[in-house]
Amino acid sequence: MTYCVGLLLNEGMVLLSDTRTNAGLDNISTYRKMFTFEEPGERVICIMTAGSLSVTQTTIARLREAMEDPDADGETSIMKAPTILKVAEIVGNMLAEVRTEIGEKMSAQKQSASATMIVAGQRKGGAMRLFLIYPEGNFIEATEDTPFLQIGEHKYGKPILDRVVRPDTSILDAQKAVLLSMDSTLRSNLSVGMPLDMAVIARDACQVTMRRRIEAGDEQFRAMSEAWSRALRDGFTQISL
Amino acid sequence: MTYCVGLLLNEGMVLLSDTRTNAGLDNISTYRKMFTFEEPGERVICIMTAGSLSVTQTTIARLREAMEDPDADGETSIMKAPTILKVAEIVGNMLAEVRTEIGEKMSAQKQSASATMIVAGQRKGGAMRLFLIYPEGNFIEATEDTPFLQIGEHKYGKPILDRVVRPDTSILDAQKAVLLSMDSTLRSNLSVGMPLDMAVIARDACQVTMRRRIEAGDEQFRAMSEAWSRALRDGFTQISL
Repeated sequence: MTYCVGLLLNEGMVLLSDTRTNAGLDNISTYRKMFTFEEPGERVICIMTAGSLSVTQTTIARLREAMEDPDADGETSIMKAPTILKVAEIVGNMLAEVRTEIGEKMSAQKQSASATMIVAGQRKGGAMRLFLIYPEGNFIEATEDTPFLQIGEHKYGKPILDRVVRPDTSILDAQKAVLLSMDSTLRSNLSVGMPLDMAVIARDACQVTMRRRIEAGDEQFRAMSEAWSRALRDGFTQISL
Repeated sequence: MTYCVGLLLNEGMVLLSDTRTNAGLDNISTYRKMFTFEEPGERVICIMTAGSLSVTQTTIARLREAMEDPDADGETSIMKAPTILKVAEIVGNMLAEVRTEIGEKMSAQKQSASATMIVAGQRKGGAMRLFLIYPEGNFIEATEDTPFLQIGEHKYGKPILDRVVRPDTSILDAQKAVLLSMDSTLRSNLSVGMPLDMAVIARDACQVTMRRRIEAGDEQFRAMSEAWSRALRDGFTQISL
């Protein structure tokens, strides 16, 4: 399983992913699920992935190949696409293509492989955009009403986002919110695990303005998690029935 | 969908269920999912249900028929069963039988019908026991380490239970905990809905000691829900990253 979350705020975008993958409970590994592509000041794209590792790795690998191909144009390379909407289309089409290919191989074994992705990006002069790409390649976009998108194990971490995230939430509060959302998920689903990858893309910077890997045992994350537990217990105690 | 939760505490058992059923999003109804059976002072049994309404209704109806059958014995009537463990077995067997019957009818349409139940009970001189019955009829029991069981949409409401419910939690705090757990679920899943049914079975009372239906618009529930939102937001504000 996986948990990735992206926030689209007035001040910028905040992205967080875990790194745990598993093929059964007895085969657990650590893989990066957050991939950033930058031409600083011109274009920034961040992709987060959930689902079958063979599908997500192949999709990212082919997107990279297309980027490195000197003949690629705005129809195939996400670094040349004229808009971030077009980037979402390219990623969606590639994801659907890879999924179909791998799905055909797996259907013989009556198994299936699927994946979803979050694509965040901005190009110079354009708007910040945040998309959730479905396994079939179609997508939805974060809006003012719903300024966050989640993939993977989204349920445990959703209540905190529902309650505190608004478009005018500050980048600092947004980092707290996604980390607490991840904390609730880590507590309840063993197949989501540390370390974590966090990225901040400030509005109009067109580059990743903060990047942080949070390792298991990170002192700051542990302190925040404990403070949140205390706050919840204190709040609970004070409420009268 | 459905959300039902049962707590097994030193002071007694606390049970809460919603009442929403749906066949698609365009066909929503209200059905009681909590059923109590009592011989006050001698035996109390509370069953909560989740899953296919045709399976749960038929199962409860047949359990009632067996109870009313003058020839029924401790092998078939939950009101005559010698132990609450035996009650869980009778409920489990009936659920599995009904599920198989209905499943056969539905398999022709390539559909399936399934259900899970929570059974709470105590008989005079026996221990309080709380079981989760799986669709196949087998079951697990709440213990000191895990003093709560959930069926239906369990994820949104689990973090609060994980953090505050212990065997020595008071009945009053337990009622708060299950209502806040339900509140988080109601906010996130439209297919869980008011009114709610709550029951308390105090230890050794062998009867339902408190029963409450909480209607949509209940003032006390609304106030508690808002106080919890405030507590979460305040707690969030005070935590430093």
